[in-house]
Amino acid sequence: MHILITGAAGMIGRKLTERLVIDRALAGQPVEKLTLIDIVAPVRPAGFSDHVKTRAADLADLGVAEKAISERPEVIYHLAGVVSGEAETDFEKGYRVNLDGSRALLEAIRKTEGYTPKVIFTSSLAVFGAPFPEAIPDDFHLTPLTSYGTQKAMVELLLADYTRRGFLEGVGIRLPSIVVRPGKPNKAASGFFSGIIREPLAGQEALLPVAESVLHWHASPRSAVGFLIYAAGLTREQLGDRINLTMPGVCCTVGEQIEALRRVAGDRVAARIRKAPDALVERIVAGWPRRFDPKRALSLGFRVEKTFDEIIRAHIEDELGGKVG
Amino acid sequence: MHILITGAAGMIGRKLTERLVIDRALAGQPVEKLTLIDIVAPVRPAGFSDHVKTRAADLADLGVAEKAISERPEVIYHLAGVVSGEAETDFEKGYRVNLDGSRALLEAIRKTEGYTPKVIFTSSLAVFGAPFPEAIPDDFHLTPLTSYGTQKAMVELLLADYTRRGFLEGVGIRLPSIVVRPGKPNKAASGFFSGIIREPLAGQEALLPVAESVLHWHASPRSAVGFLIYAAGLTREQLGDRINLTMPGVCCTVGEQIEALRRVAGDRVAARIRKAPDALVERIVAGWPRRFDPKRALSLGFRVEKTFDEIIRAHIEDELGGKVG
Repeated sequence: MHILITGAAGMIGRKLTERLVIDRALAGQPVEKLTLIDIVAPVRPAGFSDHVKTRAADLADLGVAEKAISERPEVIYHLAGVVSGEAETDFEKGYRVNLDGSRALLEAIRKTEGYTPKVIFTSSLAVFGAPFPEAIPDDFHLTPLTSYGTQKAMVELLLADYTRRGFLEGVGIRLPSIVVRPGKPNKAASGFFSGIIREPLAGQEALLPVAESVLHWHASPRSAVGFLIYAAGLTREQLGDRINLTMPGVCCTVGEQIEALRRVAGDRVAARIRKAPDALVERIVAGWPRRFDPKRALSLGFRVEKTFDEIIRAHIEDELGGKVG
Repeated sequence: MHILITGAAGMIGRKLTERLVIDRALAGQPVEKLTLIDIVAPVRPAGFSDHVKTRAADLADLGVAEKAISERPEVIYHLAGVVSGEAETDFEKGYRVNLDGSRALLEAIRKTEGYTPKVIFTSSLAVFGAPFPEAIPDDFHLTPLTSYGTQKAMVELLLADYTRRGFLEGVGIRLPSIVVRPGKPNKAASGFFSGIIREPLAGQEALLPVAESVLHWHASPRSAVGFLIYAAGLTREQLGDRINLTMPGVCCTVGEQIEALRRVAGDRVAARIRKAPDALVERIVAGWPRRFDPKRALSLGFRVEKTFDEIIRAHIEDELGGKVG
């Protein structure tokens, strides 16, 4: 099986690549070849180099999508895109990359005779916009309040139509907020959800810009990769027409996140969180969805951590070699 | 006030033009100028010719959208598009006209400094796809089952994002099935909803391809124009972020349509309907939405006929000079 990953240099892309190299199989088929594309050339995974092509390219550029699929990969993970903040500050770039780049990929597939790959697309909870019910059902409407969310929702619609027409077999995976993100703190408004766990575990102070009552929907990077792997095994019959799915997550308050950190790593570590209220972050976070009722994804067999404790332990195992700093 | 109508040669476009020429005002402002665009040059309305420009042009062609808005019309009615059947049989044309043409218009507006017109877009119930709840609420998700519905849903998303960003003031109007459509029978699967009223009233036989129990959501052409006129008077504050609105309609079965025809025009007229079951039409219609709970549109003040009898009477008044054949 030949697998193409767009946006392969990103955090999820790298972890997905690592997992595929370890598993050497996807949906019961051996993985024979990986093609990794991103704006910057993705790093070659160790131990599988002979079977990996990497390329720096922008899908929205002329001819790039055609070239990307010219060897007819059976499975395409379409993760490429500019992030929420950038899509909001650079309107044209957001539409060019997130919408036009995705459409170029789908069009290249449609125009390739007798080729109907599985296309697994990472969508986002940003397709939803406040006000929300207590728990958002699978049939809740998409009223995004960012350009990023708009672009993701538009690609979901395209993916469903191209699937219905038989040009490809699409699945849209609406990822929860991914915590604990490895690496350095970033300026994303959501950064603190990871920061208040990651920094204390690494022996550093973390700032908490919101109240402990803030509720949110989380999954670990490990679960995110698990969703993408699992999606590849679903059949067209299982999915039906509604191919865009809200993933399960762990719903908890910031206070519950901190309690979980205390249980997993002790008082000394949890004490490294310092309150630093930020009205802007509070306001942004207030517009985000908090809790879902993802019946369809659960009934299709998608699984996530059961508690925030498990999310923290996954981070300690996967990123810290099992050790707490 | 200068008003631009795209798709002005279509049925709704013509009726909207007539109404604006009669009213000579919109949202409390005098109508000074009309620009009418369509693929074929729209007919100049009688009695207002000095103030009307007509043009045959395709918004998806390079430079057409820029030219269309070069005189900065304050209100734009964007009705242009290929219909459902054509968007399904000609995939590329559907996306080119319905999506790219609309996006070209929005982009031309965005790139015009200091210009934020009101843009009233005719969307469709085709943005919804079965299975449905008993009555579809305003916050039901969009899972179109046609390329036409996909394109309409994508433009709704764009319109909301461009509105949120302050590039324009958009309103998306999801029209019910418009009955009684004047003119000749057509091959649209929905054609019989109009045909079973229009033909008998004109002294002709009409075929009924579905069971009398089929339930549907109707509004007269007069109401459709009324929605579009009313939308121009709504403020950004009234609309909020959720600018795409399902319009109210008259929900009734085919049997109730026939009973209404009998009440309005007598047994002799109603007897001109002949049952001619068509499994294909039955199947297509089964996928369509039937009943809505359009709370938001009603609370914003949109109004429709109260009964199907009124819809028939509107047809008799507007198209038949008050006479039944």
